[in-house]
Amino acid sequence: MAEMAPWAANAWYVACTPDEIDAKPLGRQICGERMVFFRPRAGAVAALEDFCPHRGAPLSLGFVEDGDLVCGYHGLAVDCAGRAARMPSQRVSGFPPTRAFPVVERYGFIWVWPGDPALADPAGLPDLPWAESPDWVYAGGLYNIACDYRLMIDNLMDLTHETYVHATSVGQKEIDEAPVETRVEGDEVVTSRLMPNIPAPPLWRQGLIDAGLPGDAPVDRWQVCRFSPPSHVMIDVGVALAGRGGPEADLGDKVFSIVVDFITPETPASHWYFWGAASRNVGRPDLVAARREAQGKVFAEDRAMLERQQRNLDAHPGRRLLKLNIDAGGVHSRRIIDRLIAAEASATSASSAA
Amino acid sequence: MAEMAPWAANAWYVACTPDEIDAKPLGRQICGERMVFFRPRAGAVAALEDFCPHRGAPLSLGFVEDGDLVCGYHGLAVDCAGRAARMPSQRVSGFPPTRAFPVVERYGFIWVWPGDPALADPAGLPDLPWAESPDWVYAGGLYNIACDYRLMIDNLMDLTHETYVHATSVGQKEIDEAPVETRVEGDEVVTSRLMPNIPAPPLWRQGLIDAGLPGDAPVDRWQVCRFSPPSHVMIDVGVALAGRGGPEADLGDKVFSIVVDFITPETPASHWYFWGAASRNVGRPDLVAARREAQGKVFAEDRAMLERQQRNLDAHPGRRLLKLNIDAGGVHSRRIIDRLIAAEASATSASSAA
Amino acid sequence: MAEMAPWAANAWYVACTPDEIDAKPLGRQICGERMVFFRPRAGAVAALEDFCPHRGAPLSLGFVEDGDLVCGYHGLAVDCAGRAARMPSQRVSGFPPTRAFPVVERYGFIWVWPGDPALADPAGLPDLPWAESPDWVYAGGLYNIACDYRLMIDNLMDLTHETYVHATSVGQKEIDEAPVETRVEGDEVVTSRLMPNIPAPPLWRQGLIDAGLPGDAPVDRWQVCRFSPPSHVMIDVGVALAGRGGPEADLGDKVFSIVVDFITPETPASHWYFWGAASRNVGRPDLVAARREAQGKVFAEDRAMLERQQRNLDAHPGRRLLKLNIDAGGVHSRRIIDRLIAAEASATSASSAA
Repeated sequence: MAEMAPWAANAWYVACTPDEIDAKPLGRQICGERMVFFRPRAGAVAALEDFCPHRGAPLSLGFVEDGDLVCGYHGLAVDCAGRAARMPSQRVSGFPPTRAFPVVERYGFIWVWPGDPALADPAGLPDLPWAESPDWVYAGGLYNIACDYRLMIDNLMDLTHETYVHATSVGQKEIDEAPVETRVEGDEVVTSRLMPNIPAPPLWRQGLIDAGLPGDAPVDRWQVCRFSPPSHVMIDVGVALAGRGGPEADLGDKVFSIVVDFITPETPASHWYFWGAASRNVGRPDLVAARREAQGKVFAEDRAMLERQQRNLDAHPGRRLLKLNIDAGGVHSRRIIDRLIAAEASATSASSAA
Repeated sequence: MAEMAPWAANAWYVACTPDEIDAKPLGRQICGERMVFFRPRAGAVAALEDFCPHRGAPLSLGFVEDGDLVCGYHGLAVDCAGRAARMPSQRVSGFPPTRAFPVVERYGFIWVWPGDPALADPAGLPDLPWAESPDWVYAGGLYNIACDYRLMIDNLMDLTHETYVHATSVGQKEIDEAPVETRVEGDEVVTSRLMPNIPAPPLWRQGLIDAGLPGDAPVDRWQVCRFSPPSHVMIDVGVALAGRGGPEADLGDKVFSIVVDFITPETPASHWYFWGAASRNVGRPDLVAARREAQGKVFAEDRAMLERQQRNLDAHPGRRLLKLNIDAGGVHSRRIIDRLIAAEASATSASSAA
Repeated sequence: MAEMAPWAANAWYVACTPDEIDAKPLGRQICGERMVFFRPRAGAVAALEDFCPHRGAPLSLGFVEDGDLVCGYHGLAVDCAGRAARMPSQRVSGFPPTRAFPVVERYGFIWVWPGDPALADPAGLPDLPWAESPDWVYAGGLYNIACDYRLMIDNLMDLTHETYVHATSVGQKEIDEAPVETRVEGDEVVTSRLMPNIPAPPLWRQGLIDAGLPGDAPVDRWQVCRFSPPSHVMIDVGVALAGRGGPEADLGDKVFSIVVDFITPETPASHWYFWGAASRNVGRPDLVAARREAQGKVFAEDRAMLERQQRNLDAHPGRRLLKLNIDAGGVHSRRIIDRLIAAEASATSASSAA
């Protein structure tokens, strides 16, 4: 599947959140692979192919016992490395192994490496200071979205859509009117937009008020979207009272957060969208919960649009789309993905030749 | 798609009713084309391909502004003719046009021409006197039906099915027993049946009573089905007190209506069925509403049968069906459709050659 | 379809239960054939292809009249042998026949022969003494299951799965620990397991109590699964007070029943599962009903597992599975099925050649 798949396999993807595997194993398809995630013991995590070598039952229907995952059909126990550990009245030494996937728990997520295990290095995980600092607080959710994951990257790397898709929350015409700047920094793409001296849109107006600032004051608004391979998009967003320095304003003059988007391919036509936001920890879990709910509604608007867009593209497979300056973020991000896929394919064929 | 499609493209089809586009744009697939219908201004109507040339989002998720349709994803505005009109911070002069479809509002319906716009002439719309006369009143509805639209034409051009499918409303064994006559008149097909001196079936019995006539009197019943290309079927139906002249009886001795069927292909395996009836306007909207409800139930019986028939035909693709005398209406109608399709194909290849 | 199909066609399969056809015709797909079952008269049963030769409507939407099945679309009446019997205003003598399937009512089931009618002999029905004896009582149900019918045979011929899939009802670790013996007897396969001197699992504990025996007494438990072509599995199950002779113990020292499984292919990827149990008739319909309900829950657990297993196998079509000693029952049963299919194919080609 690797050579035709529209994603890089040798990369860390967010697979799930810890709460999804605390009580029992979780079956989830990631980058075309059906996987089962489980905790062999408290604090540990493992990922195997979700396929029992005995009769093909999904291991995710089983349970954990003595650190191994026991198939819920006939009791074959498989260890974290995919080795057949035991089975009642059977000698399992000759049983074929189950594929194991490198997996790491960090930053409040379970990360999986769908490709070559020999290349998996936790040092390659992104650096997410907000996830490990008591000064920040994170809240988010998960949507399964029936479209190519790259449509979501396009979406997040061009926030002019907020004016239309999110007209009642974060959209405002001033987004379209502000120039956008896109630059490529190695394997990352940054798209940024500054909107000086504008009224705050509804969600930011509420943010100002929550912070004790005047909601109707003119603000300098910013949006800095950063794509990192394989498919993460972090967006610095905020508003500062106009003329106080924008993103560089004093803490007391601005409100801001990091929109966090981990976009994990499920199949070529669907993906897992781990959405959320990190904001300054001001000891107000009620505000965090309210913003998470508001953000969930905003991203549900994206989901509706993207799924309809995908169906439209499916109906017109040969149609070329426009690539405007506002699309540069998505275009460059896709180029980086394509480059990674090509490099994997070339490494695979070189190693096959050798 | 044109050469394989089982429908004529150069024809007027009913696309929707005005109420479906009054509040916001309507996305609807017709003859395999995904279209968006909207009102650029009060009283006007336009139809475009439902595909934004920017990123492929459905334009039907957008809104109308200054006579143009604005895409709900990133704000590209397209005018009625499909030209890119404007987009925030963009020069749109080089944008590719969106396909526009000829569209007309008449007779209480929006009509669309899916084929070559150069051939679209509103003069080709059918002549529907009942739709423009205060002496008549129309009521109807819309079903999406999961079968080839030609199965619906077959159904309507052979009313012997009423005896079986609509046994409790308009069916009666006397339909089967009466001889049926089918004739071809140019591009139209007429199937007619006269049933002299029979009891009225339940729905007509009610009609007689509503008109102040005896429900249990013997009647002369008639059914005259007329197919017109591309896929309209109008059926003159009625009962007169026996021996008073049947269809030619005095107004006071008969009850009658025109069953109106606009059958619009959606895909090769589904269609939009605009069903309804025109009847004499006697200032009784309550009766019109009651008959509309009764008719909706009758046509729901057809829907159930036709969808099951389609699944059966799909399961036996090579199976030949019988063509009896009662099937002549459908057979001749299909021949006319085939002739129109062939003529379009031949005109297309001639123009390609030239 | 025959040569590729994964089932024997020249065999008796359970099609339905009498109550399913008492009120009106029943449409059901069996071994890939869409069939309609009906009672031409009280006590009689017939099966035809569910396809009207007139316009392809499903005959199962029709009704029985004078011993014939009348199509619910336009009234063609077809007799039990598939001959067109009559149609209003039509001469039907030249109408093509509808395929008729040999069908028999026996043992409380309707049995159908999807293959060559010339080979259908009711003498080939299985011998089911419990179904005709007042000493026994039967209760069961029907599930449509989205998997290859052979996965259900595998399931029933290896009851180690009870420990895992049915942990709360009939499962216990002692099943896995007891040796299993599999033998082939002509066209039948028998897998048996004896579990001496163990505690009874919950369902059997209840059975002991219902019979006035101590639920917590040690028991000798037995399971004897018998596969018969084309796809029936009968399982002798029971527990006797330990040391009283197991299956041979006196009636007063044991409780037992016959688990009855008729597994009828619908399509290559789905089947009809007629599940049930025969037990001694002790004049307690309340107990029979309670056990039927409990058994329905147990088999719903199988359904969930098997449908997920099928989806997993579909996702990994080339993957080889293990064949352990516990799988011998299924493996041998499949060999017998394969042999029957091959014999049919060879007979067909021989007769084609001749």
